[in-house]
Amino acid sequence: MARTGIHSFVWSASSAQADLERTLANTKEAGFDLIEFSYLDPANVDIDRLAKRIADMELGVAISIGLPAEGDISSSDKAIANRGIDILNRTIALTRDLGGRKIGGILSAGHGLQTEAPSRDQWNRSAATLAEVAETAKAAGVTLNLEIVNRFESNLLNTAAQGLAFIADTGSDNIFLHLDTFHMNIEEADVGLAIRHAANKIGYVHIGESHRGYLGTGSIDFAAVFDALTAIGYADDLTFESFSSEIVDENLSRKTAIWRNLWTDNMDLARHARRFIALGLETARRKAELVAAVQKP
Amino acid sequence: MARTGIHSFVWSASSAQADLERTLANTKEAGFDLIEFSYLDPANVDIDRLAKRIADMELGVAISIGLPAEGDISSSDKAIANRGIDILNRTIALTRDLGGRKIGGILSAGHGLQTEAPSRDQWNRSAATLAEVAETAKAAGVTLNLEIVNRFESNLLNTAAQGLAFIADTGSDNIFLHLDTFHMNIEEADVGLAIRHAANKIGYVHIGESHRGYLGTGSIDFAAVFDALTAIGYADDLTFESFSSEIVDENLSRKTAIWRNLWTDNMDLARHARRFIALGLETARRKAELVAAVQKP
Amino acid sequence: MARTGIHSFVWSASSAQADLERTLANTKEAGFDLIEFSYLDPANVDIDRLAKRIADMELGVAISIGLPAEGDISSSDKAIANRGIDILNRTIALTRDLGGRKIGGILSAGHGLQTEAPSRDQWNRSAATLAEVAETAKAAGVTLNLEIVNRFESNLLNTAAQGLAFIADTGSDNIFLHLDTFHMNIEEADVGLAIRHAANKIGYVHIGESHRGYLGTGSIDFAAVFDALTAIGYADDLTFESFSSEIVDENLSRKTAIWRNLWTDNMDLARHARRFIALGLETARRKAELVAAVQKP
Amino acid sequence: MARTGIHSFVWSASSAQADLERTLANTKEAGFDLIEFSYLDPANVDIDRLAKRIADMELGVAISIGLPAEGDISSSDKAIANRGIDILNRTIALTRDLGGRKIGGILSAGHGLQTEAPSRDQWNRSAATLAEVAETAKAAGVTLNLEIVNRFESNLLNTAAQGLAFIADTGSDNIFLHLDTFHMNIEEADVGLAIRHAANKIGYVHIGESHRGYLGTGSIDFAAVFDALTAIGYADDLTFESFSSEIVDENLSRKTAIWRNLWTDNMDLARHARRFIALGLETARRKAELVAAVQKP
Repeated sequence: MARTGIHSFVWSASSAQADLERTLANTKEAGFDLIEFSYLDPANVDIDRLAKRIADMELGVAISIGLPAEGDISSSDKAIANRGIDILNRTIALTRDLGGRKIGGILSAGHGLQTEAPSRDQWNRSAATLAEVAETAKAAGVTLNLEIVNRFESNLLNTAAQGLAFIADTGSDNIFLHLDTFHMNIEEADVGLAIRHAANKIGYVHIGESHRGYLGTGSIDFAAVFDALTAIGYADDLTFESFSSEIVDENLSRKTAIWRNLWTDNMDLARHARRFIALGLETARRKAELVAAVQKP
Repeated sequence: MARTGIHSFVWSASSAQADLERTLANTKEAGFDLIEFSYLDPANVDIDRLAKRIADMELGVAISIGLPAEGDISSSDKAIANRGIDILNRTIALTRDLGGRKIGGILSAGHGLQTEAPSRDQWNRSAATLAEVAETAKAAGVTLNLEIVNRFESNLLNTAAQGLAFIADTGSDNIFLHLDTFHMNIEEADVGLAIRHAANKIGYVHIGESHRGYLGTGSIDFAAVFDALTAIGYADDLTFESFSSEIVDENLSRKTAIWRNLWTDNMDLARHARRFIALGLETARRKAELVAAVQKP
Repeated sequence: MARTGIHSFVWSASSAQADLERTLANTKEAGFDLIEFSYLDPANVDIDRLAKRIADMELGVAISIGLPAEGDISSSDKAIANRGIDILNRTIALTRDLGGRKIGGILSAGHGLQTEAPSRDQWNRSAATLAEVAETAKAAGVTLNLEIVNRFESNLLNTAAQGLAFIADTGSDNIFLHLDTFHMNIEEADVGLAIRHAANKIGYVHIGESHRGYLGTGSIDFAAVFDALTAIGYADDLTFESFSSEIVDENLSRKTAIWRNLWTDNMDLARHARRFIALGLETARRKAELVAAVQKP
Repeated sequence: MARTGIHSFVWSASSAQADLERTLANTKEAGFDLIEFSYLDPANVDIDRLAKRIADMELGVAISIGLPAEGDISSSDKAIANRGIDILNRTIALTRDLGGRKIGGILSAGHGLQTEAPSRDQWNRSAATLAEVAETAKAAGVTLNLEIVNRFESNLLNTAAQGLAFIADTGSDNIFLHLDTFHMNIEEADVGLAIRHAANKIGYVHIGESHRGYLGTGSIDFAAVFDALTAIGYADDLTFESFSSEIVDENLSRKTAIWRNLWTDNMDLARHARRFIALGLETARRKAELVAAVQKP
């Protein structure tokens, strides 16, 4: 069943237990079914307690992560690559322990602006490594979803078509695409065509505006996004993501270059997003029905 | 092979031989591959000579017709229905004699604003009759393409989905859809979704703007049209249609309500349309390629 | 203050008192601020009672009308023209008596498909007559708003630019434009450009989809509509209009060629429209603010 | 008069004399009126000879530059800021010597991904410095045009509204905005609204696709861009910019993260862009005319 999620950084970048629990409450209050957390460190967070809360509130959960430069699995430096594998394995364990089934984010290489073009060797190393990690994930009941991000955040996988080729090279059946409309707006020829092309490998979707603020107030043709998702029969999670200078995560805000304040009232933002996505999906469904309606006299 | 055509009323509504031949010359000069004529009466036109000219100039030809009220094949009045069958049979002969392979237009019922809703009987009569006419057409090497038009020009087939149901009811394999962007803009939920839905039954396409003037200067999302045609692999005729009060056909101008002058220089209009369609198709092709480009490092 | 209205034919085409009152209740229940009625005959309707109900419910009211062929004020036949003047005068009285301030609809000529092009004399007669009627309206505290409709429903005023020229020719300051997105989608080069061009003469607006069904499920670029209305500072009534074969008005359904069933549940339709318009206006406001936001560090 | 330009990196990133001259020839051959060069070092390039060629070919010329980190005029480090002033002054001299009248690019701060949010002091230092540099430019007959770029390439001026506020703070009448559709697609609420908002301060425009490849094959609504430029009466230079991994500039390719090959045949790309822009401008002009066409009978 399709769930509508929200990224936790709409609420807070803190991983203090009280903040995490308030994040769950806000998520529920704003009408969402799923919370996406960035990696949480079990050393600092009571994962069992958080998992119980999530379950009690009947929320879904997903975990996303962007590999750091020092944990880039595509690196030719074994120590760096191994650190990346370790991070991924810990993320798998965290996801499973929280009751989640999906990992998203930049898993194939380091997150952040690169200074040179990628190489075929880098691609191959990453694919081979992820194929193995995907087995670990599978055993844990978790899928890997490779976020396809814009050129300024990665040099390896910028389009859905590259992601499909990469997945084919892994040979794994537990690796899918994590598409994000913010990134697609920069890299894809067309959001709708790209979604249709990637149809049966889309495992997770981020709904974000072109400037990362309120949905509908930017460049993205969301009607085309919802029409394409409806056309391919995507009936899985859609997670709203938005960043503003109001809530800063030292690491992520820098890599994603969040300088402007695009909102201060996160509850208003979240409720607006919930209405926007609901109305968008409903409209797409009605259009699909209308286009196929026989309407004989 | 995809041919780009033009409706003869861009050039002239006259069926005098000299005017028809000037129409062919203009069509060629403006860069088109195909001319669409409204029904020409062999009693007034030297069809053999026209056919020879068309062949000599290596032009394609298509014929369109809108059944008159007094020749409405969906009528319960046998005399009226039979008159319609006769008109269709003469159109088939004309098309064959001119070297054409397609008939388009409003073939299922009378063309023009109706005063009451259609009935199931009307639909059934029309389908049964067209099934027979389609056999005659098939023997002549000609297909029937049912133009799906807006509510003010017919009450029977206003959407592609209705057209598909109607074709299914005929049981014929020689009846296809004639889609027209001007009409789709009024009736369909979405031009792209409708083209995809009707994919394998589209036999002929009219490219016309929302106000019937210069392409690109109205409401229609032609990028979506060309993307969808590319996605379904449509590689058949696309014919530009435009009307202005500059060129009046007593019958058609009234039924299609042409009051405004949207152009006076038809050669400029036609050349613009030719460039617009060419650039649109090229752009759609490039987008489709880009969306599927593997681009491994 | 901007009010969001709804056309009464979403609820019922009956003018029985109980039906009219149920229409008011439905309007309120679905969250609208204003009801638009087609002309109601005081001979059959208790206007005072209806006016009191409207006032008690704190609803706004607008009246629309399409002149019949036999009451076409642009006619050279004095008897016909005078009948039209009489109809308009009665509509003014009705509007005033119901507590309304706006008359919309096809006031300049007969409503319905015409069979020949309009003439300059017709235009001039209509303008001269409306100039006088507008004085009567002014005295009653009512404005005349000329609906700009598509070619199949009138041959006189099909674009906002024609409407502006016509208003200039009347010399009246009590005549404005009644724009309707359904018609604009067919006739205007661009909905947003046309709204901007007509800016200070727009008195009333219909929000309708391209096929007259659920908003958002057709061709119209409503984001462009709301952006343009916001840009020109339009802060007046927006009325949702939708027709389906579910609710038939003998006269209007024929002239507007309503053959298909685009909805059966009118309360669902109306609530959807209310949400759609509210979200659209909110989004446009946010975009306008964002585009002008200084955001100095 | 509006000129259509092209960025030299479509042709070559080399500043060898022969390559620069071939760039001019290609520019002319592809039908452009203006060449935009990134800063050329007079120590390595025979500026007089290049200027003469440009004049002989009746081409316009513009110069763009992105300040390096070590020449960031917004820096609190005087030595760094002074280096920036020196770079700008040399760019002014170069532009004048080549016969140009416009400098574009990232002039207000360092080009490239920043690691922290900008400060008000930084903004103020930059504005004060540019006010002075603008006087030098004015004396040389050259305007400064501040390129508004996306968050990953600068943290200071990401929207046209910020640029307007910044220009106001300089107090200069010789500083304008350099808008670029690639960047606007990421940062602005709406390309058309932003162009209208910035109307009288737009000095230079880059036409680039969302992924920096072929125009029309990405996310940007170029019809909205051309409509807005037409609406504000922009009749100045429009320069096509496109990057592919095919042509690498060590510095710029890294800062702009060019990893993918979006074209190999630059002449085909350029000619396509020329046709695309010409057709886009023509279409926008026709739409503006149509929206205002009185069309009285």
